Amino acid sequence: MIDKQGSFFIGGRDVKSEALSTLSAYDSVGTITVDQMYVHYQIPVDARRLPVTLIHGCCLTGKTWETTPDGRMGWDEYFVRKGHPTYVIDQVARGRSAVDPSLINSVKLAKAPIGKTPAVFSAGQEAAWAIFRFGPEYPKVFPGMQFPLEAQAEFWKQMVADWSMTLPQPNPTVPALSQLAIKLGAAILISHSQSGIYPFQAAALDTTGIAGIVSIEPGGCPPATSDLAPYLKMPILVLFGDYVDLSSRWAPRLRGCREFAEAVRKRGGRTELVVLPEIGIKGNSHMLMQDRNSLEIADWLYAWIDKNIEQKRQ
Amino acid sequence: MIDKQGSFFIGGRDVKSEALSTLSAYDSVGTITVDQMYVHYQIPVDARRLPVTLIHGCCLTGKTWETTPDGRMGWDEYFVRKGHPTYVIDQVARGRSAVDPSLINSVKLAKAPIGKTPAVFSAGQEAAWAIFRFGPEYPKVFPGMQFPLEAQAEFWKQMVADWSMTLPQPNPTVPALSQLAIKLGAAILISHSQSGIYPFQAAALDTTGIAGIVSIEPGGCPPATSDLAPYLKMPILVLFGDYVDLSSRWAPRLRGCREFAEAVRKRGGRTELVVLPEIGIKGNSHMLMQDRNSLEIADWLYAWIDKNIEQKRQ
Repeated sequence: MIDKQGSFFIGGRDVKSEALSTLSAYDSVGTITVDQMYVHYQIPVDARRLPVTLIHGCCLTGKTWETTPDGRMGWDEYFVRKGHPTYVIDQVARGRSAVDPSLINSVKLAKAPIGKTPAVFSAGQEAAWAIFRFGPEYPKVFPGMQFPLEAQAEFWKQMVADWSMTLPQPNPTVPALSQLAIKLGAAILISHSQSGIYPFQAAALDTTGIAGIVSIEPGGCPPATSDLAPYLKMPILVLFGDYVDLSSRWAPRLRGCREFAEAVRKRGGRTELVVLPEIGIKGNSHMLMQDRNSLEIADWLYAWIDKNIEQKRQ
Repeated sequence: MIDKQGSFFIGGRDVKSEALSTLSAYDSVGTITVDQMYVHYQIPVDARRLPVTLIHGCCLTGKTWETTPDGRMGWDEYFVRKGHPTYVIDQVARGRSAVDPSLINSVKLAKAPIGKTPAVFSAGQEAAWAIFRFGPEYPKVFPGMQFPLEAQAEFWKQMVADWSMTLPQPNPTVPALSQLAIKLGAAILISHSQSGIYPFQAAALDTTGIAGIVSIEPGGCPPATSDLAPYLKMPILVLFGDYVDLSSRWAPRLRGCREFAEAVRKRGGRTELVVLPEIGIKGNSHMLMQDRNSLEIADWLYAWIDKNIEQKRQ
């Protein structure tokens, strides 16, 4: 039972361009709006819980959190059913959040040198295989793997081109998340992978409205030697799946996050780092919100949020 | 009250590429999946009506049908509340449906000539003003305009870059719509603008599963001299808003659709063409699903569907 649902944008700026098009049917000169972040939300009847915001990672969109590749309920619906108003975003310049094609057209029109072509990339399935820790390398599979690889074709369809390297730093998704948290009043920001650093960066801009951070398999945590003051103000969970030590890409990221969590704890902060096999949950890939036991993990996360965020505010 | 919701993809093909990336962090060689169509659906409890599929137009995404720029309920929710299982798609190569960046990267890597740069365009707000018939030219407004122009900034944020000119013909959205209709068994395809021709093209491929077509402000109808046999098999509504005769872009399209509708009727088909001011509903722009009276139009459309599609099947 849904009380209210809908969508809106946060942020955005107008850009005047002379290279919107190379086609005669569409003017090349004009104004477009870019850097806005698409937000889709559902608020359950009798919402008793804090809003959660689900933030996807590299080369993916908000689809990450919806129906799993093998057709099971996504976390977007899970959190609504559990009483959380749930906000799913498309990062700036991804999915339903616009990109600026002007540089592509400027090169095509010979108004800009080839080197100015924007660095738009897609992750190939063979390389993504190891990045998502389905196995050590394509097409080997880690023993006990929980990702539904029989439905991998549906998963690969989720992947889209990534324009993040063409954006200013921090990614405009960061101030947009900050504005969303301020708008919501008290939001739990749940990030994944590439977006792992965004809620931390948003908290560094302004801690207002950020009731807690859940960083799932982050591409990076803030350096332990950075200004930790913003992170002392809210409960933080950093969550990793299985096989991390078998990945030369992920093992150092987990180490960096351990150092961060330890540094925050030493300063009195409430940061917890959990590696799922260390609490008895085994076989999880990088895409743990889509793994076969995704709802078991959601139950565990729901309970963690209840204990460490919801109850602490009462 | 929602019985079931979620998302999936239709279609898609694997592409092997040697130009997925120009960045050292991501392999340039690999496989990606493109030409799939993203579908988000909601099925109400006690769904008594046929499924409707909402298909957006140029330079827009499925967001078209969600919350209006001034914050009112979108048609996606309206049709669910009225008992219709509702499917909202992102056209192939738009929104959450992936694009192939290989040609951009091939040019950047000097592996392809500049002329091979894909024709990706954005519609500027000034040009879109007249295309969407907010007024005769930017920033003049037609008298009695129903579009909520005070919220136009939120509308411009809906617009995204359009890759449709880089796709094969017919647009892969067309066979995907056909497959979706076959999967649903009996679907009403509701198109808008650029996508206006897609349901007709889908019916020409295979009429199976297409219970009816509603073509809102189509960029074009099938030629009156074309093979009309597929269009004799289902109820068809072509719907236009106001100010059409004041637009040199839209007036010929309306004329072409009148010829199509007349030709189908002469062959015994059930095609109706309605121009809203001719039935007393005035002031509508091209974006009539977002105009101030959008829910009044939805009520009218719901009744049309009930009378001409639902009741005729009983």
